[in-house]
Amino acid sequence: MSVRKPQILKGFRDYTPDQMRLRLHVIGIFRQVFERHGFEPVDTPALEYLEILTGKAGENEKLMYHFHDQGDREVGLRYDLTVPLARYFAMHQQDSVLPFKRYHIAPVWRAEKPQRGRFREFWQCDADIVGSSSMLADAEAVSVLTDALDAVNLKRAVVSINHRRLLEAMARLAGVPESYAPTVFRAIDKLDKIGPDGVRRDLVATGVDEAAANRVVELVTRTGSNDELLDAAAADLEGIAGGSEAVTELRELAGYIDSLNVRPGSWKIDLSLARGIDYYTGPVFEARVDEPKVGSVAGAGRYDELVGTFLGRAVPATGMSLGLERILEVIQEFELVPLRASVADL
Amino acid sequence: MSVRKPQILKGFRDYTPDQMRLRLHVIGIFRQVFERHGFEPVDTPALEYLEILTGKAGENEKLMYHFHDQGDREVGLRYDLTVPLARYFAMHQQDSVLPFKRYHIAPVWRAEKPQRGRFREFWQCDADIVGSSSMLADAEAVSVLTDALDAVNLKRAVVSINHRRLLEAMARLAGVPESYAPTVFRAIDKLDKIGPDGVRRDLVATGVDEAAANRVVELVTRTGSNDELLDAAAADLEGIAGGSEAVTELRELAGYIDSLNVRPGSWKIDLSLARGIDYYTGPVFEARVDEPKVGSVAGAGRYDELVGTFLGRAVPATGMSLGLERILEVIQEFELVPLRASVADL
Repeated sequence: MSVRKPQILKGFRDYTPDQMRLRLHVIGIFRQVFERHGFEPVDTPALEYLEILTGKAGENEKLMYHFHDQGDREVGLRYDLTVPLARYFAMHQQDSVLPFKRYHIAPVWRAEKPQRGRFREFWQCDADIVGSSSMLADAEAVSVLTDALDAVNLKRAVVSINHRRLLEAMARLAGVPESYAPTVFRAIDKLDKIGPDGVRRDLVATGVDEAAANRVVELVTRTGSNDELLDAAAADLEGIAGGSEAVTELRELAGYIDSLNVRPGSWKIDLSLARGIDYYTGPVFEARVDEPKVGSVAGAGRYDELVGTFLGRAVPATGMSLGLERILEVIQEFELVPLRASVADL
Repeated sequence: MSVRKPQILKGFRDYTPDQMRLRLHVIGIFRQVFERHGFEPVDTPALEYLEILTGKAGENEKLMYHFHDQGDREVGLRYDLTVPLARYFAMHQQDSVLPFKRYHIAPVWRAEKPQRGRFREFWQCDADIVGSSSMLADAEAVSVLTDALDAVNLKRAVVSINHRRLLEAMARLAGVPESYAPTVFRAIDKLDKIGPDGVRRDLVATGVDEAAANRVVELVTRTGSNDELLDAAAADLEGIAGGSEAVTELRELAGYIDSLNVRPGSWKIDLSLARGIDYYTGPVFEARVDEPKVGSVAGAGRYDELVGTFLGRAVPATGMSLGLERILEVIQEFELVPLRASVADL
């Protein structure tokens, strides 16, 4: 008998029965929460035409698993669940009642360097609302997010909320040229890791002048209650294009969040939240856990340009994505979920 | 806004909310049945080293999605859940109590020509027992299989049972040279589609002499009660190498099946069942539905050589695989499962 060496690809994992029981339990809880909030389940193929997957961000192509299939088609393993949602919506819009609220729990694949808590195959749990530009949809995204985290006893997570156009207006106010906006977002996105000085250095290194860099950091690191922060931003940004609209939307959003009975203390306005991804167009959210220091366990935001790329017209959309692996890490570290013997007990 | 055409790869499907609700419901029922029978959940990566996946059957390599990843490793999407089980067991055997009873519900990918009811991405629901050579393990496989089909009201399915070594002995008895055994299995496997005359023609065309071909077909198409068939086989095969051992195992298996209270009428001995796959070494099973004419909805069998290939020693194993897509087809055609509004009602 010739012996083959059993081995598994780096960045990929087997799930043992104990790990699977916890995963299935938590996924079952998320399904219940999503359905309670009116989201419906869908699934899409693991493989898609590469051009479907790469439309959003050419930069990601090198992190995608892609190849030519037996019919010489260029195909790739899905990188996230948001681009497949856009493709799905374009192909099924005639059957979908708007707003279309779908959830999708499935693995995605990224050819990234594996590191602690970062894998090449991991599961996302996404809930999105397509077809509504109302801040009520964003409030629902925050509501389902906090409810999902509460449901697995992850009450230590706090959802930070900001607005992309507010950040743009602040950069404008600080005197940063328009074309630097993505640079500013990326620098601010690293605030947690590199601190205010690091952000300032990063901005200057990429060509922003020193006074503007200082002003940006000063504006986004302001502290205070939600109302204080929004009042200050409103005062600062009077007359700056896009600024007061963004503040108005955030005020609306805060009001809707309260009216949906989201637990006070589970969310806050944070003017330094940027989110790395390019496609956000409005409010952005992030749920963080600081102890243990796992960082972001869920991300979210409004992306009014993406879904429409397959239809040739704007289709407003907002949503949120729970990072299952990090959430499981916190749950295991703190034994947050009482483990039943079987999924049948759910 | 540049418009990209939304399209999906041939042989791949989106699942809409209605379809997903039914899928999740049926998968949930299967999980419950598997766990009630003592099977534990595992999961393995979608991507594996290609050499792990191809050990079993070089023939299948052209039906596998495979490519070189960013690190120039040859990788492939899993083709079934049985080879990953063998790799998993080899890597986790020290943590596994024997017999290791695991179930695995997950998608697999095959670069086959799509046709009605056959897709390039589809889900398998497997339950296997590793580490026992007792016919009790095979009886448990039959028991969990009939229980799973009953649980989705698929009582019209009947499990056929045969034995690979019984077929080999019959071929020997008929005077077919040893080396033709795989040819004989493949020809008999098509009995349903091409009839007895077709099988005879196939055998003769591949070099089996006419008298032997006739005798093979005569032996395997015998009808009668389970006991009658086993008695006749025992009488025929006296003195034929492997024949009486196979009959003894089938008698043992039948006794265990009865002792596990498997519903009478849900299974039968069928001497013409061959199963196409090469790795079976003992009893083989197949659940068929003849109305609507979907054919096989589950396959199973003992494969004592496969799991050990990664360890360099024989590791007995047996198990069964439910074909989710075909089962869902029958369920939808006959409205067998009362659909609840939500998975939360499970």
